[in-house]
Amino acid sequence: MNKYWNQRTRRLQPYVPGEQPQDQQYIKLNTNENPAPPSAAVLEAMHAAVDDGLNLYPDPECRKLKQSIANYYSLPASSVFVGNGSDEVLAHIFAGLFDSDKPLVCPDISYSFYPVYARLYDIKLQQIPLGEHFELDLNNYPTENGGVIFANPNAPTSLAISLGEIEAFLSRNTNSVVVVDEAYVDFGAQSCAELVSAYANLMVVQTVSKSRSLAGMRVGFALGDPQLINGLERIKNSFNSYPLDKVAQAGAMAAFEDVQGFEAARKEVIRVRKQAAANLRELGFEVLNSSANFLFARPLFLSAEEVYERLRQAGILVRYFNAPRISEYLRITVGTEQEMDELLEKLEQLIVNAKEN
Amino acid sequence: MNKYWNQRTRRLQPYVPGEQPQDQQYIKLNTNENPAPPSAAVLEAMHAAVDDGLNLYPDPECRKLKQSIANYYSLPASSVFVGNGSDEVLAHIFAGLFDSDKPLVCPDISYSFYPVYARLYDIKLQQIPLGEHFELDLNNYPTENGGVIFANPNAPTSLAISLGEIEAFLSRNTNSVVVVDEAYVDFGAQSCAELVSAYANLMVVQTVSKSRSLAGMRVGFALGDPQLINGLERIKNSFNSYPLDKVAQAGAMAAFEDVQGFEAARKEVIRVRKQAAANLRELGFEVLNSSANFLFARPLFLSAEEVYERLRQAGILVRYFNAPRISEYLRITVGTEQEMDELLEKLEQLIVNAKEN
Repeated sequence: MNKYWNQRTRRLQPYVPGEQPQDQQYIKLNTNENPAPPSAAVLEAMHAAVDDGLNLYPDPECRKLKQSIANYYSLPASSVFVGNGSDEVLAHIFAGLFDSDKPLVCPDISYSFYPVYARLYDIKLQQIPLGEHFELDLNNYPTENGGVIFANPNAPTSLAISLGEIEAFLSRNTNSVVVVDEAYVDFGAQSCAELVSAYANLMVVQTVSKSRSLAGMRVGFALGDPQLINGLERIKNSFNSYPLDKVAQAGAMAAFEDVQGFEAARKEVIRVRKQAAANLRELGFEVLNSSANFLFARPLFLSAEEVYERLRQAGILVRYFNAPRISEYLRITVGTEQEMDELLEKLEQLIVNAKEN
Repeated sequence: MNKYWNQRTRRLQPYVPGEQPQDQQYIKLNTNENPAPPSAAVLEAMHAAVDDGLNLYPDPECRKLKQSIANYYSLPASSVFVGNGSDEVLAHIFAGLFDSDKPLVCPDISYSFYPVYARLYDIKLQQIPLGEHFELDLNNYPTENGGVIFANPNAPTSLAISLGEIEAFLSRNTNSVVVVDEAYVDFGAQSCAELVSAYANLMVVQTVSKSRSLAGMRVGFALGDPQLINGLERIKNSFNSYPLDKVAQAGAMAAFEDVQGFEAARKEVIRVRKQAAANLRELGFEVLNSSANFLFARPLFLSAEEVYERLRQAGILVRYFNAPRISEYLRITVGTEQEMDELLEKLEQLIVNAKEN
């Protein structure tokens, strides 16, 4: 605590991202990155951008990138907002679209950044418990609220709900903004992008970090009614005029245009996920039905924390959450086939050792 | 106005950056970019970063980049904060270090983003008028305040004050954070970086956009007491864990390591500035003594607005501010020698035409 910190800085409980250790090489299955590098077309676009006048500012409105995203989703460009990763997009949504008098409603188990934003912007939070098997049931959500946010598929549970369930809720909940965080949607859930023109209070948030292999470049976006988007632009233009650099804009644009590369990488993750889930179940894990690029799995032979620690010692990082209800689970990113094989090998050894002791 | 905007979004008056027209090629002397591209070493570092696993997240703490900046200023890395352009760094300072009960003090004429941030975070602002000749006199600044911010050199005036004047103020003003925005410092003013270890409430903000030719990459930083920096980290980690992408980190690092390239580009701007200032004075402009990479100049033959409009029609962009006290001035970025020659030619034509009519 420092005497120059203001009240806001004092009350914060900052988010802790998954480890990004710089000390040694790990097999990184802890931050839900895509194991495939960006496609050749995407890399080429970024190399060209490096040589294209970086002494000059980028387009602050990112018009070309917005148009590429708009084309992909058959929406007008005025329905697209872009930001420095979906984290920045989410932060601006919390700052500008959630009411501070009524509570914001979200699941008790979801992306752990939501309560952090709420504290940053002094927004009351009402967390609705997921069901016994981590199912998200929007029928339990009050429509008297200052906003609603949930992830679909949800994290760290990996479970998705249907477009029908979300649309039913949207037709009931019309007085506040409903945010569907679709960071993982391309791996097995249906996007709400197609509902954007029908619901003026729907905001869909996505990222190029996962399915488009660009976590290193920090580009996220939101789709919504042009008036909602305009509210986000007001916040952004009161915060930072130029959040996306030229190389990031070029890479993200190319990623939306290279549909073939995107489809191939996406399908490969789904293929490896299926196989890894089956193998983990065989080893005695309880594994939830994932629609994401990670598995939420409970080891039955050792505590989750112990498995996490031992894997770490063996050079494999997975994510462990020391939090109520989920402390017996691990979140395991779907890596390459080879990485998943190495994970299985280490787990087999752990089981053998555990039985011997 | 939209029914889903909250109170904050409604009250904002967003910043309007200088034009970045995408429709045609202009000689851009309106947003204080460096006319020189980044050096070969910087470009090489960025190309290497493009090929270095962009599917993985960057280091959220930017440790290597912080170390490069710390080395350059002979400070510990814990005295360095980095962000997505100095605009984001400034936004976090407003969010986390300025008190909301007492007014923040700043010059009446300065970077026009300061009042925008104040409105975003609901901070009262007390603007102290610059002197008759736009001089900044810290003796006029009350020490009963919730924070102080000014730019040195100031913008758009281009005038600098001395380190001694700032230190005298710092030794009086010990109860609030004093921010010196040094976006243009490398072009002719003395940096307060060397005062950082002596004053626990001093925050120095800089950018790689101007003197380091990387406006296209969005990297800014702050230097301060590790406890102040820690406050900024708390805000940043409650907002966006990974604001700097891998390519931006690599480019900025290389820019701090390539001291020779930096010195050459910086000196060239100063050389061209001197020459351009002399030429403008000869044409009948009143030109302030610039310590920045731009000139603040008053045309005596036509109104500033008219000169701005006619230059625009002739394919040259300069910045015109329709604001009290400065509406008879133009802010003209120092471009290449050739660009400044073209500017002078057009101005000569304007003068001839003005005299004929």
